[in-house]
Amino acid sequence: MIKRYAGTTPTRSRAVAHNGIVYAVATAKNKSGGLYEQTKDALALIDATLAEAGSGRSRVLRAVVYITDMSRKPEMDRAWDEWVDRANPSQRACIGATLVDNDLVEILVTAAQ
Amino acid sequence: MIKRYAGTTPTRSRAVAHNGIVYAVATAKNKSGGLYEQTKDALALIDATLAEAGSGRSRVLRAVVYITDMSRKPEMDRAWDEWVDRANPSQRACIGATLVDNDLVEILVTAAQ
Amino acid sequence: MIKRYAGTTPTRSRAVAHNGIVYAVATAKNKSGGLYEQTKDALALIDATLAEAGSGRSRVLRAVVYITDMSRKPEMDRAWDEWVDRANPSQRACIGATLVDNDLVEILVTAAQ
Repeated sequence: MIKRYAGTTPTRSRAVAHNGIVYAVATAKNKSGGLYEQTKDALALIDATLAEAGSGRSRVLRAVVYITDMSRKPEMDRAWDEWVDRANPSQRACIGATLVDNDLVEILVTAAQ
Repeated sequence: MIKRYAGTTPTRSRAVAHNGIVYAVATAKNKSGGLYEQTKDALALIDATLAEAGSGRSRVLRAVVYITDMSRKPEMDRAWDEWVDRANPSQRACIGATLVDNDLVEILVTAAQ
Repeated sequence: MIKRYAGTTPTRSRAVAHNGIVYAVATAKNKSGGLYEQTKDALALIDATLAEAGSGRSRVLRAVVYITDMSRKPEMDRAWDEWVDRANPSQRACIGATLVDNDLVEILVTAAQ
């Protein structure tokens, strides 16, 4: 069974769950913040999505964090370090890339239910 | 059991299936098209690969779409929106990045069999 | 059960294993090398991590290889081609992106245990 969690665009899902795994994505809802604020905001949306799907931050297996300005990575790291469950840290990669509009960060997580 | 689907390069597979999940990749076969045409072309290859692996576009869990020019993203979105199963949309992320040669788009999908 | 393999940073894991799948990441330990050397080095770390998690290079399902200079991709390909199990090649994507510090390559693998 595949369960889909609708996002803001009808042709994409915010998250999909299948066979005990949740695939989720988030960007900040408030695009006016800096990288720290946007990361915090996106991680809060990840929290909400994971909770809805019966998972949580202690069950994240992999995170890929795309940021638009690698020179500001410490701001993202700060938000991540405040958020992460230190007893259960995810595998993570941080990649500098181009994102849409005023997004400074986009986060993909794969988590266990 | 791991099943591998050969691509054009012997040291990489076009797709791999394991434990009910298909991991597939595609770029356009015809590199002379614009972003809309290349996305359409790559998605047709994804369709063929998924069919071969006993999956299909209604069973895509996650797609990561890399494009070389984020300012042209609406062209990719148009091809995506025409392709996607609207009753079963995948989680998706679109990332601006550098690709090889004349590729304007590269698509990674994770799908259920 | 989720098993986590600690890396150098306490808030991230080098690898996580769950339900028969290993999610691993590596960059080169020695950042002074060129792209060929760094790729070779990162793949050796991937080997060590996969072995520790009861997997191996013949069981890689997907690899995503991020490199900072796409014009030097043949150097990465050479290290990959020397490393890969040609009887069991992984699905792979190579993406040009920005990485931290002196990293020229970062490799994400998803492997079966």
